[in-house]
Amino acid sequence: MAVKPSTLKPSAQAYVPFVSVENMMKLVHAHGVEAFITGLASVIEKDFKRWPEFDKTPRVASHSRDGVIELMPTADAENYGFKYVNGHPKNMREGYQTVTAFGVLSSVANGYPILLTEMTLLTALRTAATSALVGRYLAPKGAEVMAMIGNGAQCEFQAMAFRALCGINKLRLYDIDPAATDKAERNLKAQGFEVVRCADSQSAVEGAQVITTCTADKQYATILTDNMVGAGVHINAIGGDCPGKTELHRDILLRSDIFVEYPEQTRIEGEIQQLDADYPVTELWQVMRGEAAGRRDEKQITLFDSVGFAIEDFSALCYVHGLIEGGEFCEMLDLLADPDDPRDLFGMLTRAA
Amino acid sequence: MAVKPSTLKPSAQAYVPFVSVENMMKLVHAHGVEAFITGLASVIEKDFKRWPEFDKTPRVASHSRDGVIELMPTADAENYGFKYVNGHPKNMREGYQTVTAFGVLSSVANGYPILLTEMTLLTALRTAATSALVGRYLAPKGAEVMAMIGNGAQCEFQAMAFRALCGINKLRLYDIDPAATDKAERNLKAQGFEVVRCADSQSAVEGAQVITTCTADKQYATILTDNMVGAGVHINAIGGDCPGKTELHRDILLRSDIFVEYPEQTRIEGEIQQLDADYPVTELWQVMRGEAAGRRDEKQITLFDSVGFAIEDFSALCYVHGLIEGGEFCEMLDLLADPDDPRDLFGMLTRAA
Repeated sequence: MAVKPSTLKPSAQAYVPFVSVENMMKLVHAHGVEAFITGLASVIEKDFKRWPEFDKTPRVASHSRDGVIELMPTADAENYGFKYVNGHPKNMREGYQTVTAFGVLSSVANGYPILLTEMTLLTALRTAATSALVGRYLAPKGAEVMAMIGNGAQCEFQAMAFRALCGINKLRLYDIDPAATDKAERNLKAQGFEVVRCADSQSAVEGAQVITTCTADKQYATILTDNMVGAGVHINAIGGDCPGKTELHRDILLRSDIFVEYPEQTRIEGEIQQLDADYPVTELWQVMRGEAAGRRDEKQITLFDSVGFAIEDFSALCYVHGLIEGGEFCEMLDLLADPDDPRDLFGMLTRAA
Repeated sequence: MAVKPSTLKPSAQAYVPFVSVENMMKLVHAHGVEAFITGLASVIEKDFKRWPEFDKTPRVASHSRDGVIELMPTADAENYGFKYVNGHPKNMREGYQTVTAFGVLSSVANGYPILLTEMTLLTALRTAATSALVGRYLAPKGAEVMAMIGNGAQCEFQAMAFRALCGINKLRLYDIDPAATDKAERNLKAQGFEVVRCADSQSAVEGAQVITTCTADKQYATILTDNMVGAGVHINAIGGDCPGKTELHRDILLRSDIFVEYPEQTRIEGEIQQLDADYPVTELWQVMRGEAAGRRDEKQITLFDSVGFAIEDFSALCYVHGLIEGGEFCEMLDLLADPDDPRDLFGMLTRAA
């Protein structure tokens, strides 16, 4: 039974606020895509700055022939959150999303869920928000042009986030599939971006201060080779995010200063799986707290080896939970059994007969 | 948006069948509690008999001062399932359930969820179904009387399951809180059980062939001491299910043959956390396959050191998924973003504006 609540205050303990895909889209548009991303990035930044307060664990992955299903939990003293997310590169060819997700936020005090939400859209938004937030710390000053290699589902979200947070409005697009670039070009021009279609990766990176790689094949790929990457750029490497899935040639890594979310996870899943287990990397939360250097000079190549970490999803869950407090963008789901006497679960069942 | 489906066939890939608490109760009553449990036990038994086919991992627990929140995933070649469950012993005193749960079943092939369901009731049912199923292998022949120490939320479900699967109709109840026994007595008499209230644990076990211990305090407790347990009984120990939470005196364990679900988990969470890490135990799936002995003689004390394993939840999810195929006992939740072109997630968002 789904009922509209007048308020989220759980007078009925049985009910958990649920944000459907439809309501998530309404919620995003109520704020505007860029404002939503900016607000989300600010919650992510706050959470990165209190990184040691979180209970962190690598994601729990179940691998199969065609993909992976993962659970990504984390918690602070108040809230527990987790995301369910799949990654099935073949899905796209069969008319399904490569990545779908949903998530739950709970109260640590009593273990009750306080939010269930779609996270396919929300993951796209938080991934983009994190990339652009990191870009604000690492991209060269005055960056105006971003190359985007891989024009799939994540592409436009990245562009919107980099405009909102870093002021980048010029995009150079390339994808091995021209239909993907058609789609991205159409969407991005409609959003007022200056878009240049490029014939290959090499030409896409020309004149770009930021290079975003965002391809999805589950195999060792080389989207960028060493000769393509000039001094001073920031590389935002999104696509390499599981064992065996990388995008960059190893030589690029060796010329870059590498920044990561959570080394324990990135060494397994990120571009740096190509490097020795003790290769030096910098943790982004330390950069954001001013405890480690970000970009130091104009010639430096900075690389964000993004894999996506549970704390970013936690931030997104908390952000959405705050935004739906009025009750407008959610339904209430009858998810939790709530007998009058907590010990009388059986009586609740029999009385319902 | 929650809509009633005419069928579960996902013509709309966005929708995931959702079984609310209300629908779970309707579903159970449509079959009858005992028939529901019997059907569930038969799925659990089938899954125990193909135990090696499952991807098994200990549960992922997040402990806090007042409780724990756990994710319990498992998968076979076709389906992936997980349960979210909390355990907060203090909740009861504050009007909340000690344990609440929900779960998700997915397709391994594309990672898409195919069922979201309440599991507070379903966990109570599957825990009872598992206990009684194990009782059918281990309880002495002709057992007629069960002692039930701890008369909380799980008590009546255990009784219903032991009647349905083992034919036990006589119950001897004891709880440190007489109000809990009042509640259980009322519910169980209404179901036609012969109920005897007992003044303490000692008198509860008199004449019982099966002893079910089901208390909830998160501390080393001694619900049963060694002298209370006579030869030939089967002990169904439900309550001890996390580190530091046990119910039985160590000496009882040493006199018993101990049967467990998944040793890697039970050694951390079960009664046998009191014993050496290599103390011999028998895995129930091997008993059910006839590869290990169950009860061998009339004098033997058998002990099911129950902690609850993810495969039982998986069985329960598959069972419910099968039962709701007509679409009567579920709603369809708009949980998954489903753009016309899988790569055009952003276009789906902007067109919704």
